[in-house]
Amino acid sequence: MAQVRNSKTLRATRRTRATRPARRGRGSRWTQLFAEGNAKMRDLLGGKGAGLAEMSRIGLPVPPGFTITTEACLEYYRRDKQLPPGLLDEVRQRVRAVETRTGKRFGDPSNPLLVSVRSGAKFSMPGMMDTVLNLGLNQATVEGLAQRTGDARFAYDSYRRFMQMFGDVVLGVKHDEFETALAAAKRQRGVTLDTELSAADLKALTEAYRRIVRQQAKQAFPEDPWQQLEMAIRAVFESWNTPRAITYRNFNKIPHDLGTAVNIQTMVFGNMGKTSGTGVAFTRNPATGDRKVYGEYLLNAQGEDVVAGIRTPLPISQLARDLPQVYRQFADVCALLEKHYRDVQDVEFTIENGTLYLLQTRSGKRTAPAAVKIAVDMVAEKLINKEEALLRVEPASLEQLLHPRLDPAAPRRVVGKGLAASPGAASGVVVFDADEAVKIAATRKVILVRPETNPDDIHGLVAAGGVLTSRGGMTSHAAIVARGMGKPAVVGAEGVRIDLEAKQFVAGTAAVRQGELITIDGSTGEIMLGEIPVIEPTLTGEIQELLRWADQARVLGVRANADYPRDAAKAREFGAEGIGLCRTEHMFMEAERLPIMQQMIMASSEAERRKALAPLLEFQREDFKGIFREMRDLPVIIRLLDPPLHEFLPRMEDLLVEVTELRLRGDTGHLREREALLRRVQELHEFNPMLGLRGCRLGILYPEINEMQVRAILQAAIELKRDERIEVIPEIMIPLVGHPNELQVVHEQLQTIAAQVIREAGVPVRYMFGTMIEIPRACLVADQIAQRAEFFSFGTNDLTQTIFGFSRDDAQGKFLHVYLEKGILKEDPFQTLDQGGVGQLMEMGAKLGKSTRPKLEVGICGEHGGDPASVEFCHRIGLDYVSCSPFRVPVARLAAAQARIKEKLAVAKDV
Amino acid sequence: MAQVRNSKTLRATRRTRATRPARRGRGSRWTQLFAEGNAKMRDLLGGKGAGLAEMSRIGLPVPPGFTITTEACLEYYRRDKQLPPGLLDEVRQRVRAVETRTGKRFGDPSNPLLVSVRSGAKFSMPGMMDTVLNLGLNQATVEGLAQRTGDARFAYDSYRRFMQMFGDVVLGVKHDEFETALAAAKRQRGVTLDTELSAADLKALTEAYRRIVRQQAKQAFPEDPWQQLEMAIRAVFESWNTPRAITYRNFNKIPHDLGTAVNIQTMVFGNMGKTSGTGVAFTRNPATGDRKVYGEYLLNAQGEDVVAGIRTPLPISQLARDLPQVYRQFADVCALLEKHYRDVQDVEFTIENGTLYLLQTRSGKRTAPAAVKIAVDMVAEKLINKEEALLRVEPASLEQLLHPRLDPAAPRRVVGKGLAASPGAASGVVVFDADEAVKIAATRKVILVRPETNPDDIHGLVAAGGVLTSRGGMTSHAAIVARGMGKPAVVGAEGVRIDLEAKQFVAGTAAVRQGELITIDGSTGEIMLGEIPVIEPTLTGEIQELLRWADQARVLGVRANADYPRDAAKAREFGAEGIGLCRTEHMFMEAERLPIMQQMIMASSEAERRKALAPLLEFQREDFKGIFREMRDLPVIIRLLDPPLHEFLPRMEDLLVEVTELRLRGDTGHLREREALLRRVQELHEFNPMLGLRGCRLGILYPEINEMQVRAILQAAIELKRDERIEVIPEIMIPLVGHPNELQVVHEQLQTIAAQVIREAGVPVRYMFGTMIEIPRACLVADQIAQRAEFFSFGTNDLTQTIFGFSRDDAQGKFLHVYLEKGILKEDPFQTLDQGGVGQLMEMGAKLGKSTRPKLEVGICGEHGGDPASVEFCHRIGLDYVSCSPFRVPVARLAAAQARIKEKLAVAKDV
Repeated sequence: MAQVRNSKTLRATRRTRATRPARRGRGSRWTQLFAEGNAKMRDLLGGKGAGLAEMSRIGLPVPPGFTITTEACLEYYRRDKQLPPGLLDEVRQRVRAVETRTGKRFGDPSNPLLVSVRSGAKFSMPGMMDTVLNLGLNQATVEGLAQRTGDARFAYDSYRRFMQMFGDVVLGVKHDEFETALAAAKRQRGVTLDTELSAADLKALTEAYRRIVRQQAKQAFPEDPWQQLEMAIRAVFESWNTPRAITYRNFNKIPHDLGTAVNIQTMVFGNMGKTSGTGVAFTRNPATGDRKVYGEYLLNAQGEDVVAGIRTPLPISQLARDLPQVYRQFADVCALLEKHYRDVQDVEFTIENGTLYLLQTRSGKRTAPAAVKIAVDMVAEKLINKEEALLRVEPASLEQLLHPRLDPAAPRRVVGKGLAASPGAASGVVVFDADEAVKIAATRKVILVRPETNPDDIHGLVAAGGVLTSRGGMTSHAAIVARGMGKPAVVGAEGVRIDLEAKQFVAGTAAVRQGELITIDGSTGEIMLGEIPVIEPTLTGEIQELLRWADQARVLGVRANADYPRDAAKAREFGAEGIGLCRTEHMFMEAERLPIMQQMIMASSEAERRKALAPLLEFQREDFKGIFREMRDLPVIIRLLDPPLHEFLPRMEDLLVEVTELRLRGDTGHLREREALLRRVQELHEFNPMLGLRGCRLGILYPEINEMQVRAILQAAIELKRDERIEVIPEIMIPLVGHPNELQVVHEQLQTIAAQVIREAGVPVRYMFGTMIEIPRACLVADQIAQRAEFFSFGTNDLTQTIFGFSRDDAQGKFLHVYLEKGILKEDPFQTLDQGGVGQLMEMGAKLGKSTRPKLEVGICGEHGGDPASVEFCHRIGLDYVSCSPFRVPVARLAAAQARIKEKLAVAKDV
Repeated sequence: MAQVRNSKTLRATRRTRATRPARRGRGSRWTQLFAEGNAKMRDLLGGKGAGLAEMSRIGLPVPPGFTITTEACLEYYRRDKQLPPGLLDEVRQRVRAVETRTGKRFGDPSNPLLVSVRSGAKFSMPGMMDTVLNLGLNQATVEGLAQRTGDARFAYDSYRRFMQMFGDVVLGVKHDEFETALAAAKRQRGVTLDTELSAADLKALTEAYRRIVRQQAKQAFPEDPWQQLEMAIRAVFESWNTPRAITYRNFNKIPHDLGTAVNIQTMVFGNMGKTSGTGVAFTRNPATGDRKVYGEYLLNAQGEDVVAGIRTPLPISQLARDLPQVYRQFADVCALLEKHYRDVQDVEFTIENGTLYLLQTRSGKRTAPAAVKIAVDMVAEKLINKEEALLRVEPASLEQLLHPRLDPAAPRRVVGKGLAASPGAASGVVVFDADEAVKIAATRKVILVRPETNPDDIHGLVAAGGVLTSRGGMTSHAAIVARGMGKPAVVGAEGVRIDLEAKQFVAGTAAVRQGELITIDGSTGEIMLGEIPVIEPTLTGEIQELLRWADQARVLGVRANADYPRDAAKAREFGAEGIGLCRTEHMFMEAERLPIMQQMIMASSEAERRKALAPLLEFQREDFKGIFREMRDLPVIIRLLDPPLHEFLPRMEDLLVEVTELRLRGDTGHLREREALLRRVQELHEFNPMLGLRGCRLGILYPEINEMQVRAILQAAIELKRDERIEVIPEIMIPLVGHPNELQVVHEQLQTIAAQVIREAGVPVRYMFGTMIEIPRACLVADQIAQRAEFFSFGTNDLTQTIFGFSRDDAQGKFLHVYLEKGILKEDPFQTLDQGGVGQLMEMGAKLGKSTRPKLEVGICGEHGGDPASVEFCHRIGLDYVSCSPFRVPVARLAAAQARIKEKLAVAKDV
């Protein structure tokens, strides 16, 4: 599903290939016969209409009909819900044309033409808009239909179905009213199935329906087929703007100004006996991509029956036995459609008395593995070229292929649901505390369960196999860290009530205590009891093939954000060409180091701080050596310490409660020590830490911290070169620069240190100094900053926060969801780059930077580096690379290739 | 003092009038005789050199000499501290020229030429750089001087002074060493005054000095006058870059790349008997502006003696009795200089044996009242025109004239000092709590004393006569609110240790309890014990005259930020042309309303919220009527509720402690209620409230709050028009818009409400909807925002926070002071607009906004609206008005006039 919702890619390509609509017939302004249109006219005819037109055009058996265009719908709204002048006249002409082709006449009791009236917008909005079947029936034509087909039961069943749909959709009578009458009729006859009702029963039922309509809708059920038709057209137009349709479009980011087309088509009936039937099929298997028609059908049935699930449909292969000739014809049609559309098609068909009719064709939705296989196979089949294949796969879908998935066959009990924050599945025992998670993880797999996480919990996150939180959004701390580590995470599961003191959580009716097994699925957000078997991911040959093509096609580099050697290794395996962001703060959070870090923070003089920093230097050097070893020959950007120091200390709120308790209990022994800690925490407390003492500001106030880090980085590079003949290019990143003077002060100091370390060792290593562009001011004065910075890395998380004035941690839970629901924002700007605002300043920053230093290396390391739309933007503004979490590296590789291909196509189109 | 430090205005004007330096004599590249220069050459000759040159040029008696240019100094630094080639040759030629004029010869024992060597930068840096007097003396020439003057004591005293200065300044020997030797000599002779030492004593002392120099400086004291001169020149060059000089320039915002000139001038002596003397004088009284020479002198003395304060100088008027002829000559010189410079001059002079010599002239520093009086008087005297008069007064200095001042004659005991955050003086009893302040203020004047204030304390601030805090900076909450209200404030007084529980503070050795009287001076930052009488301000006729001229000259409008009718009245009195920002949140903070507001916040449904809002509507309507009455016929911008809701609730930290205490004490009665409050506070808690749920985001989530406010605004306008025939133009401001869709949602809702209120009342009133531009994104999409907004008001406080990524509340205390000390930032961007960053986006925003809506009204309402440099910027980018606190309205009026005049001058210069 996700694939089609987000398939801007595919749409965009189609648009670029689309030509102007063909001329319509003389005097036909608002309508078009199927035979007059083609597949490229989706804007005007909607998806369904364009499909019917195309199939008609290439000679496939489509029941005759015509489409009222989306322009008519838009005009209807422009005229304050008046039908466009001339529309009804055109409709009459079109119906006449259909009559000519079918030999039937609309409203003629002797041989009545019945039609379906269906909505059909440019993008599929399944179940959102309305359909009326069997239109044209009334008390006279129903008798004609009975005589003509020799099947009164069929005729009256069709009539009561029509009345029910029309009553509901057009007249606004509640569906239940009809169902109640139907149930009463069956009760009266002592039967349970609709099919057990006789023609007479059904005729009586239509009388009952007529009464219901008069009572509920305060009007008679219309007898005039033309009036029925006009009312149905209006109803379809109206259905474009129902609240549910608007909500659906907001959610799926479909524009509101497209309007819907209306398709009016001769009815065909799959329920006319054993040589009739109906079904749906895909030209290839949409789950696996196997090259074989895949679908199901029912004989003697209508489309509704397949959907309703009353009878179990049969696999399409069986049609070969039931109606061999029709099957052969259908298989040929499928092959033809696939060749014609050069893509997998999702086809609806009906067989009326042995004659095959096609009712719909559209691009088939498919799973991610199927998409990859189909794309690669079609290149081998010479149906499409490599560039087209690359455009066929939704980049974001690749991520799910790289994580373990739950065995779909395994039974499960889902007890709750949260946001699918980091894909993959994990089972483990529930632990509510980070420290305990570390202990228990030594022997068992662990799921860390917290209301929310913060940097204090990092060691617990490292130890756990997955994380579940009851608060926070897609970019909460838990979500970001888990994605960075490639660990499954379900966050913001509001139905999960966690009681930390009792060490248990309640979800639905289940209560889960610490130590009990659960499974979380970070791809769906589901929380399940017990351990559920998983399927390990495989990077199939097709994926690897596709990504190789992507690497050939793209010009944008792809690096990874990785803080640990294991992440770096993963990144490299997934094709990263370097590390775009190594955050050093996590290194300080690890259990054995945190106390030393805290000592450093509590120090009251530079000398004391330096003393505490000395052992950290050893740790850091080994950390960097580990990462450098994995990234041999590649660049590694290391960001100097960035977060505010209070993140390394306990939370003020907890300390306040603790100190108050100690004080009231008279526990003076601990009190003094905890009070001292509280005082320091209060000193460091900030109203808005995101805008506080962090980044290069720390380095300006406490230069000794940066100094230690730069020593560790260069010593690591030197030792590897000298002892293991491994070369890397460390790029030292000074964060949060907003004024060139900040960079100057820090850079001058650190340059001296770097030169000194190299001089002392006598081993020349290459290195660069650069900065993170994450403050609006930095974009505005990027030309000045580039005088010193050898590289820029856009920190788009913080840029988004400052340019919008949104605190990420607060916005998600407090108001951003409302913005998305109301359509104030089309996308979460923390997931997809805000091109109008953030992007504008990035473009300015990149341009100004290169104006001073043409060889400036410019990349992006925010969360957006793995978002396909954002990657495309980065390509467009000429960045050198994007950097994202290791598991999104393949996503970025493909997205970068698509960006380049689309650009070429656009250029080709302009030429 | 403040006047000269900040007198960019004056400087800029001078620069615009300056012409290229005159051609110097052939072959003279690095030096210039006084007679060759003029007043316009300050860049090249420094302030002192230009003054000496100008006086020489117009024929005043200046001892002959020459200036080594600032270019020579810069070249010295460019050459890594090598004297520019040819400099010493030029110096020799110049000395020869001086010899010719004086008849003395440098280093000639028979008639030695002695010179002073003084630094002289473009801008005065008093006491920062070095001076050597009596240079040219050695063991031979001192004898010659003794013979020539017939005064051996004089000669040896001059010699030992020279050795002492040269030793200290040039050779780096500690001053104390010489003082110790001098003290020993006096002890030995049993005398107490230097003057009691004989020639022989002084000669012996020079021997002692010689030994000290050899010992301390590891070199002989130079005998060769040329060597002395070269060393002195180097020392003056070096003194430009001493740490204290760099610090001084950072602090006073003087560029580091100007360099200093060196003035070498024939010595004249005021200590040669009763017809000799020395003094300093102003051509008018620098304290009052009275048109009368003002100064002091000493007979038989050198400049040093006046400074040292050993003898009490006499008022200049007495010179008429002592040396009538010299006095007349001096009075004529003063009149001539004033007419010549067309400004008050600060003159140094020496009388040697009845001959007057002028040693310096420069623009005289003056108090703010004097500056105004002198400027207005000089227009009447036709010395300058009105535009020049307007440029003569530092706009910022006007503010201090509008506040009560301490009687300078009253005795006082200063016990501490903080930042002078809001000018004016106030006395009152100390109160440590806002609630108590309200109670006590009913009967006595109160000074509210808090570690820091927050919005909870507003009612206390309203009740108090002044505020004192021990934390926070110039833009802390207390500082901003106090300035807004025009109340004196001293903030960030770190030496004041407040003990809230004991209700006392300790400052220095004084302990002050609640209820004791103190006085604070918000213009100096001083804290004094007891009540000190104040002088009420008077808007003198001169000030009013000057401001009238300013209003004629300026094109930029000036409005005021005012939240209460009394502030609006004050603003109008000071010349405001409307209200640029009325913050409605303070209205909710008042004692009787806060509980209702809290009820609204605690409400769990929209219905409950609406119920709580109803009584607030009544209050708000009356508030607005009050303000509108004062602002009759003028526009009033009212900002809809902006701050995060938790600002109206108690602090989470306090509640946590309280709830913990109640829990441990088993006080279940209160516990439940306080826990509920704590829960709500925790729900509303944000990590970065500045970037959280506030501004229009509140209105989007809780439209009923905005709705109530808009009703109140329009009902107020309607009732005033109908009942009191008062018309105003309410401009309703929607805050914190970053995306045009936010404005659309809020605007559509409120437009409907506004139209409805007017329709119901049947009274047409004019109103506008607009927005505050305070988020970077708003500047970037201002063209889209202006499609709906009828006005923009730049909220430069928040723009500065987001563009720099600086939390104002945190930056001040945590790192901004370090940035200013280190010169990373030249100015506090919260006080003076950052033109390179914030200004760039403002300019873009204003331009884009007007591109969509040419008649868009654009102003600024941040703290910067009252800062002269920022006002000039606002004029330059074409804003319609600035808005500032009422007491800064005159400042803004003058600054706006200066901006316009400077612009005209620049245009005139370009033509």
